[in-house]
Amino acid sequence: MSSRPVATSGPVLIVGSGLLGASLGLALRGAGVDVYLHDTSPTALRLAQDIGAGVPLSDITDPSPSLVVVAAPPDVADLCILDALRTFPSAIVTDVASVKSAVVDGVLTTLATAQQEGFAARYVGSHPMAGRESSGAGAADADLFYGRPWVVVAHEHSAPQAVLAVRMLAGDVGAVPVEMDARTHDDSVALVSHVPQLVSSLLAARLAEARSESLGLAGQGVRDTTRIAASDPRLWTAILAGNAGPVVEVLEPLRADLDDLLAHLKAAAQRGPLRGGSVGAVNKVMEAGNRGVSRLPGKHGGAPRRYALLEVLIPDKPGELGRLFTELGEIGINIEDLSLEHSAGQAVGLARIMVDPGRLNEAEKELERRGWRLITNAV
Amino acid sequence: MSSRPVATSGPVLIVGSGLLGASLGLALRGAGVDVYLHDTSPTALRLAQDIGAGVPLSDITDPSPSLVVVAAPPDVADLCILDALRTFPSAIVTDVASVKSAVVDGVLTTLATAQQEGFAARYVGSHPMAGRESSGAGAADADLFYGRPWVVVAHEHSAPQAVLAVRMLAGDVGAVPVEMDARTHDDSVALVSHVPQLVSSLLAARLAEARSESLGLAGQGVRDTTRIAASDPRLWTAILAGNAGPVVEVLEPLRADLDDLLAHLKAAAQRGPLRGGSVGAVNKVMEAGNRGVSRLPGKHGGAPRRYALLEVLIPDKPGELGRLFTELGEIGINIEDLSLEHSAGQAVGLARIMVDPGRLNEAEKELERRGWRLITNAV
Repeated sequence: MSSRPVATSGPVLIVGSGLLGASLGLALRGAGVDVYLHDTSPTALRLAQDIGAGVPLSDITDPSPSLVVVAAPPDVADLCILDALRTFPSAIVTDVASVKSAVVDGVLTTLATAQQEGFAARYVGSHPMAGRESSGAGAADADLFYGRPWVVVAHEHSAPQAVLAVRMLAGDVGAVPVEMDARTHDDSVALVSHVPQLVSSLLAARLAEARSESLGLAGQGVRDTTRIAASDPRLWTAILAGNAGPVVEVLEPLRADLDDLLAHLKAAAQRGPLRGGSVGAVNKVMEAGNRGVSRLPGKHGGAPRRYALLEVLIPDKPGELGRLFTELGEIGINIEDLSLEHSAGQAVGLARIMVDPGRLNEAEKELERRGWRLITNAV
Repeated sequence: MSSRPVATSGPVLIVGSGLLGASLGLALRGAGVDVYLHDTSPTALRLAQDIGAGVPLSDITDPSPSLVVVAAPPDVADLCILDALRTFPSAIVTDVASVKSAVVDGVLTTLATAQQEGFAARYVGSHPMAGRESSGAGAADADLFYGRPWVVVAHEHSAPQAVLAVRMLAGDVGAVPVEMDARTHDDSVALVSHVPQLVSSLLAARLAEARSESLGLAGQGVRDTTRIAASDPRLWTAILAGNAGPVVEVLEPLRADLDDLLAHLKAAAQRGPLRGGSVGAVNKVMEAGNRGVSRLPGKHGGAPRRYALLEVLIPDKPGELGRLFTELGEIGINIEDLSLEHSAGQAVGLARIMVDPGRLNEAEKELERRGWRLITNAV
């Protein structure tokens, strides 16, 4: 990143030195931008300083940041934003809280009451779609934002140059700025972030009192579905309190599906034997799940899937995979996505390659001509 | 694996050549055991044969397997087991179905009705805790069972030598035999496999009708929680029909927690502002989730991992992936497994590459020297 020109002119003050704040500090400093840090917890501040995320604001004489980024929990974000707007009258101010309507409304309402509406032009909300189940500066990573969407949420009074400054900040740390209004943002994160978090926690809660014998049978499926259940309860309680309405709108139809499923499973349990009757409700939920997961965007952000699947058997010899890629390049086929099903100890692996559907036939024909063995997918 | 002594004396007949049957065939043949395959679908059988999982039973004159493994869906498993017990009167017979009480009861009841109770001694149920969201022989992997628990479910009439044969089969393909009664098995898999599957599908179903704009914000959390929602509806409908009772027992308290959560979130939504009141129900669920996920054995995957993870950022330009493979080859690093992960709308992907743990440091150092950007996994 240091080789790219940096658009953000510092210094940048980051308020809150947890995972997001410290990661942002690392990324900006890596790009050559001066970073000041502030945190109400001296311990958290010291840890962020120690890992190189920035210098404490209190060490700076007469600080004058051009940009303030509030990386505090959502239930205090509006207070921190207001404080920054008042303390640094020439700074642009943004925040990275996971909920936006509640924060933006909190800021604008308070400014109106205080007859400080003019300050609102310098505030633009934002939310980088980055995180992990670990929290705190100890888990910080300069690449945390790299390639991730960074939602920029302007309100009706935001100045164009303030929006531009936040877009540039996102770009400087490798993220992709995406503009959205607060309500669309909140509905979207309820769906793709907040409800998955709650569902993962509800599921993991079932394991809390389980027998060790049962837990010993756990495989990758339950591990993946419960991974984010390790997330910080305090932070998530604040996030969900701030976005309760949109979360309820996603959870209610989920509960309706669950009720339907339970009714049918109870009936099946009473009938007993394996072929006692249909469990159409299970099939319905499984098929809806298939459709849903297939819509998660692939490499280029485009849902639904735009690529065709090419499956090639790979002899387990050094260099065979490299040869396949080289030959695909010669044929002029771009690899949009791939995974490898590798059978260690066996003489063959399977490469699953996503390609432009318009080029699939040609790719298959050319590869077969060159001696590759393909799996033909019956439709 | 071929260097270890093999306890199973073949030939082994595998009935059903899907993911589990074909993977078992690959693993046994890799260990030097003769494998016969049977499948009602000629296409499935041919695919399993092509990848080297075994030879078709119909090609064998007067076959006499010492062990028959039924790897058919649970709703036909009992019929296949009965057929094998009758067709091969000296063979030990087992199955790998994901539900056990229903299958064992089906077998014993039919044998009793037919006054063939003597046949029951040669049958022992089993269930290797291995699988993936892809199905069919195309996704088969000789290492599928490696390090995984393989539940051995004897019934009251099972002969000790039949139990021993199934334990040896598990050991020969690298799995860890665990003995359990059918009911304990069914309760355990309801908790760690069947309910996670349903919950993942219920969650993914919410994405089916979502706006693309919202899906563009999806991150690793929703991807992980919904990964297994891509699983085969037909197979899972059969599994859940066969284990409906234990699944209901896990799902009902989950629904009670969900109802409680919804009631509190609705109240929070009505109160509106960020600090309008507590959402103790959220905190309660999050904390129970923390406790539950922390009880899963082995934080980083439980089963012993043979490989170390190397994560490399890949610029989305033609040839970059090929260049990475070529350079790994130059460094002398063998790719044991890999998957590609992508970032919505951004010019970068993440290659997750499994390598020999003893070569990881060297691979990281060499790749960084050549200008690749790595994700360093903090401990």
